[in-house]
Amino acid sequence: MLHRPKIQHCKTCGAAVAYRLPDDGDTKERAVCTACHTIHYENPLNVVGTVPVWGNKVLLCKRNIEPRLGKWTLPAGFMELGETVAEGAARETTEEAGAQFEMQELFSMMNVVRVGQVHFFYRARLTSDVFDPGHETMEARLFAEEDIPWDEIAFRTVKETLQHYFADAKAQQFTLHQIDIV
Amino acid sequence: MLHRPKIQHCKTCGAAVAYRLPDDGDTKERAVCTACHTIHYENPLNVVGTVPVWGNKVLLCKRNIEPRLGKWTLPAGFMELGETVAEGAARETTEEAGAQFEMQELFSMMNVVRVGQVHFFYRARLTSDVFDPGHETMEARLFAEEDIPWDEIAFRTVKETLQHYFADAKAQQFTLHQIDIV
Repeated sequence: MLHRPKIQHCKTCGAAVAYRLPDDGDTKERAVCTACHTIHYENPLNVVGTVPVWGNKVLLCKRNIEPRLGKWTLPAGFMELGETVAEGAARETTEEAGAQFEMQELFSMMNVVRVGQVHFFYRARLTSDVFDPGHETMEARLFAEEDIPWDEIAFRTVKETLQHYFADAKAQQFTLHQIDIV
Repeated sequence: MLHRPKIQHCKTCGAAVAYRLPDDGDTKERAVCTACHTIHYENPLNVVGTVPVWGNKVLLCKRNIEPRLGKWTLPAGFMELGETVAEGAARETTEEAGAQFEMQELFSMMNVVRVGQVHFFYRARLTSDVFDPGHETMEARLFAEEDIPWDEIAFRTVKETLQHYFADAKAQQFTLHQIDIV
């Protein structure tokens, strides 16, 4: 996932920025342009994905990119401008797994404060077990709960979402899980 | 709320950017630095707030800042780095209304695709009807449903959230409302 280089120059005029309290009553230090005085804000990013389900199995993707190259993940990525949370989750599922599916309910919403992210996973019902993964994925494969490579899961939010998914599936009742990853 | 000046210079080195497809397989045009080749991403922002409730009344804030100066809103603002969605919603409620409250459940999640935002409102139970609004608020006041200034509400997401709140309160059952504002 994308890293965030520190803001050193103004994106409007290119002059150097200084980190200080803006003059508008703001209580947080921001990167303020020393020439044109534009204030540059940095805010959390949304990561959006799905839990694609085929019978009692879940689709995982083996990462072909850093970070966590070679580890398994649910299809997910950064939400883009011009889409809803659910549309972004569907787009990532198409891009990373080449899956055929129907979107279902929002299943997990997780704050990952340390890296400034909020992760959202929707359940998705696969309508085919044939996949056509994109360049970010080495392999897309269905796993039953007992076969999930728990020690090879790429991200904590994916592991938590999978654990809640199988627990809810067993209970035959799905709820929205709101979790803070600390 | 904040507007987004178009990226014209690299925030790392200050050189001019060009909008093009990056070389990493990305399918969207990005601002790419012509000197150091840093790729600059722009993503949706989260706006977080509360529906603060006192008996059958809801707390609204009259805006003392643009946009929508003088219009009424629920306390809300941009989620910051270093906080969860709920912590941001609580912070905005403190900053804009100076209210005393207990946070409750997530109540609405609304995609505002046109402006690249996702809005989240939590219900909050006020523990005092005395408020101490900050500089962004002219006045903080409690309104029963029949007194809500519907034509003077600052934002569409606030109006939708209020409408759903009073409907759910009447039905004595609160659910999470997921809405796409088009």
